Amino acid sequence: MYIGFSEAETFLRNCKDAVIITHRNPDGDCIGAGFAMKDILEQLGIRSRVVCHDDFPKRYEFLTESGADEDFEPQAIISVDVADTKLMGKYQEIYGDRVQLCIDHHVSNKNYAEKTLLRADASAACEVIYDLAEFMGLTITNHCAMCLYTGIATDSGCFKYACTTPRTHEIVARIMRGYDIDFARINRYMFDVKSVGRVKLESRLNEMLETYLDGKLCIIAVTRDMMSELGVSDDELEGFAPLTIQYENAEVGIFIRQRADDYKCSFRSADSVNVSEICETLGGGGHAKAAGCNVSGNLDDIKKQLVEAVEKAL
Amino acid sequence: MYIGFSEAETFLRNCKDAVIITHRNPDGDCIGAGFAMKDILEQLGIRSRVVCHDDFPKRYEFLTESGADEDFEPQAIISVDVADTKLMGKYQEIYGDRVQLCIDHHVSNKNYAEKTLLRADASAACEVIYDLAEFMGLTITNHCAMCLYTGIATDSGCFKYACTTPRTHEIVARIMRGYDIDFARINRYMFDVKSVGRVKLESRLNEMLETYLDGKLCIIAVTRDMMSELGVSDDELEGFAPLTIQYENAEVGIFIRQRADDYKCSFRSADSVNVSEICETLGGGGHAKAAGCNVSGNLDDIKKQLVEAVEKAL
Repeated sequence: MYIGFSEAETFLRNCKDAVIITHRNPDGDCIGAGFAMKDILEQLGIRSRVVCHDDFPKRYEFLTESGADEDFEPQAIISVDVADTKLMGKYQEIYGDRVQLCIDHHVSNKNYAEKTLLRADASAACEVIYDLAEFMGLTITNHCAMCLYTGIATDSGCFKYACTTPRTHEIVARIMRGYDIDFARINRYMFDVKSVGRVKLESRLNEMLETYLDGKLCIIAVTRDMMSELGVSDDELEGFAPLTIQYENAEVGIFIRQRADDYKCSFRSADSVNVSEICETLGGGGHAKAAGCNVSGNLDDIKKQLVEAVEKAL
Repeated sequence: MYIGFSEAETFLRNCKDAVIITHRNPDGDCIGAGFAMKDILEQLGIRSRVVCHDDFPKRYEFLTESGADEDFEPQAIISVDVADTKLMGKYQEIYGDRVQLCIDHHVSNKNYAEKTLLRADASAACEVIYDLAEFMGLTITNHCAMCLYTGIATDSGCFKYACTTPRTHEIVARIMRGYDIDFARINRYMFDVKSVGRVKLESRLNEMLETYLDGKLCIIAVTRDMMSELGVSDDELEGFAPLTIQYENAEVGIFIRQRADDYKCSFRSADSVNVSEICETLGGGGHAKAAGCNVSGNLDDIKKQLVEAVEKAL
């Protein structure tokens, strides 16, 4: 059931012992949203812990290191930035069918929770949480503000992408006015700083770019062999998808990375193509300009399948 | 003489036949500021033209193509985003000693004009012009809003850099609420879209990176030979400087590009080093985190000189 801020506030003020679920392959928004929510609950006197199928990448340590978690049997099950229980990984089986409150901004949200606070016009789940905290009249902590800034900045491509709204900028202006956030440093680590291995990988990926459909579709595919050859870890591969639409004629880009038993395909749209719709036909989903799906099989066959799906959409 | 908004308004409302001077190697901010000012003057019934030592890069065509310029002998000499008359190129000799109004945001501004509206806390000259238009009670045109958005976005690294303030975000929120700006498309062309040659060049530059002072200084140098080999034009080399501080240990980065008779050195600071001060010792200037200077001589000697200057500052 979709709910508004008022019902979400009632739920949060009356819950206890909460687990906050983020999505697998965690990014700045789900990590920011998870730890911002933990801070807010703490302010309300409610203990909680943030869980994720995968380890949190090291560069988010400034958000995630907030003391050891207490051991308790959760009474409240909350998810943030999770559009589908499939994205919970191992937590799908444990909590997937009994999520009480989901806070999200994905238009593709499956409405799996008892109550869902969905703002599909928000650039980030963190934007929804900022608005919720403001609605509740809370004065958030500096750490919470830092979580929210990071989530909004990372999900909006530092305010570059079409999902950014005037409200996004207004929220960020308020966060910057009210709190001491070293946002330039955060952005540097989120967007600019790379390991030497990553820069080399990027250079090699750029050399490997494949174009299809008169250059309208660009594909970059990374295999496990390449990763181990270059000594680059899984979480260092986050953020490569935009490379695929950097070319002048590109309309759709797909960044493919091999995992243990399948290929994760991250789609980007340069302009008008809705890649979320394409991904839905392949069992995935997301936003109009950034979406994804996981496909199994032989890499060449997968590419053929992707090219056909994009050709139909163009 | 430094002036406030009120005096700038008086000047603008009473001037006629204006020339608006931008700086050489024009970027999004001076182009945006120049054409925004032209729009504002037109609204006030004053004809003007924007001049620049160099051609405006093709990707700014959506801002610069605003009809043929009328031929008139300028009465009012205005400069925007020009910290020093040296940066005017050929227009220094013609107008350098009789600029009546300078609108700028560079702390290194040489105060060369009769009246200078300087806001060193603004992320961009376009931010100063927005505030001035608001002070004057003008309802700017959509084209003017687009110019201002582009200038602010490009000079702030899409709101990524430390020069971004809460006011920057507030202005952008208002521009986005009030006007129809395809900002995602603008940002895509300003930050993401590259020619295949540029991507290849970037990959080669990354491979060519030189590190000094335990990796705290990173230098990338592009010669004319490399440029012609790769078929990349001068204006496509804009925006490479941030590459030099993408490495984890980098504190200062210098992007060097060879020109007809000297080398243009663009400095970037990753964090606390003030590169404007370093550049001033070398005859240049700029901002604390982004500055530049032009040096003549042999490339190896120049590098030695730069390393020494940075070592002193560290």
